[in-house]
Amino acid sequence: MFEPIKNKKIHQQVSEKIQKMILDGELKLGDKLPAERKMAEMLDVSRTSVREALRSLEIIGIIESRQGEGNFISENFDQAGLEPLSLIFTLKNGKFRDILEIRNILEIEAAGLAAERITEDKKEVLKDLLDKLLKADSEAERVEIDKNIHYKIAEFTNNILILNILETISSLMTYFIEDARLKIIQTLKVDNLLEEMHKNIVNSIISGDKNKARKAMKEHFNNVYLSIENNEEFDN
Amino acid sequence: MFEPIKNKKIHQQVSEKIQKMILDGELKLGDKLPAERKMAEMLDVSRTSVREALRSLEIIGIIESRQGEGNFISENFDQAGLEPLSLIFTLKNGKFRDILEIRNILEIEAAGLAAERITEDKKEVLKDLLDKLLKADSEAERVEIDKNIHYKIAEFTNNILILNILETISSLMTYFIEDARLKIIQTLKVDNLLEEMHKNIVNSIISGDKNKARKAMKEHFNNVYLSIENNEEFDN
Repeated sequence: MFEPIKNKKIHQQVSEKIQKMILDGELKLGDKLPAERKMAEMLDVSRTSVREALRSLEIIGIIESRQGEGNFISENFDQAGLEPLSLIFTLKNGKFRDILEIRNILEIEAAGLAAERITEDKKEVLKDLLDKLLKADSEAERVEIDKNIHYKIAEFTNNILILNILETISSLMTYFIEDARLKIIQTLKVDNLLEEMHKNIVNSIISGDKNKARKAMKEHFNNVYLSIENNEEFDN
Repeated sequence: MFEPIKNKKIHQQVSEKIQKMILDGELKLGDKLPAERKMAEMLDVSRTSVREALRSLEIIGIIESRQGEGNFISENFDQAGLEPLSLIFTLKNGKFRDILEIRNILEIEAAGLAAERITEDKKEVLKDLLDKLLKADSEAERVEIDKNIHYKIAEFTNNILILNILETISSLMTYFIEDARLKIIQTLKVDNLLEEMHKNIVNSIISGDKNKARKAMKEHFNNVYLSIENNEEFDN
């Protein structure tokens, strides 16, 4: 059968070539790319095509262009800006419930994995954050530390995908309900419930008890759900 | 304190403007964008900047450019090509274990959610796929149907993020170990274990029993892990 010949634009082919080199390990974190003129020669395409390909990789956060220095493979993916996932989420009418649901699933397991894999120096990091949370004297500060504790737990799973997905979801959450975390924290503030829960989470992870860690995180999310149910602003 | 003024390039600003319009719901699935010349006028920037911004959004799969018709907000995200997650995964030295671990976590919960939320017509879809799996007469065919069953379960959670993340991870898996699924299936083929497991998964989801569905999927992954441990090719 005749199938349509896929008509790929040159800049797209250049971009895919660079992506393939990354996937094949030929280009690594922080590597400098050849000059645009040089790349155009090597690939036998126009400089415009090379520039377009580089721009698109810059936008998805894979390439960093430094003024006067050239193009590099990013070392810092935090600046990746709004990610495709956020856009697809919006276009497909994603719900706030979807975000909470996946955080719930991933963070409970992340707590368990972190408990299994945490090292002594990483325990100190969590202890330190907990200490700061208990001493914080503003709501905004508590929001930041809370976020950081969850981030560190994800990091301590040693699973790049869990960390990366939770990071993306966290920025999605920030975009959709900028002050959700603040509101949840305010609701849970009653009886120092929030501090109590994070103390449980951190201590059970430090103790290395997988099931206790999962249970502590589960309880935390149950409370988050309860606080949301009592908060009419989250109805959507 | 003086902080560096962030020097954002014009094409980047244009891209962010379009992304923001999507996030704000001003641009929807399938919408046609104004002509490039028109957009340049409206935003008071050069046509080159508009074109560069559109190209980059095209590469991340958000915009579709149709020859002679113009630029549209994509309706089909499957063609998004290699995604940033794959690149970041490679650059950060992600391991095969990471992929399996997150699939394990997400798919067990997906089975539970699908059992809770499945409708009558969706039950027919699963039954039909199971039937095809049992009747398939080639290994390649079974691989395809197996993939499809997992995809449908993710879809039936009604959670856009779960579906999207599992899709991305699935393509990651395909890239890294193209024939992993085939090998796993071959190993599990003994005693028709694979067919038996998928029968259990599908039937428990159809029965609407959340816990049974989670248990069936968990058992499936336990077997996948076992088959991998006995397969030295997956050591990395």
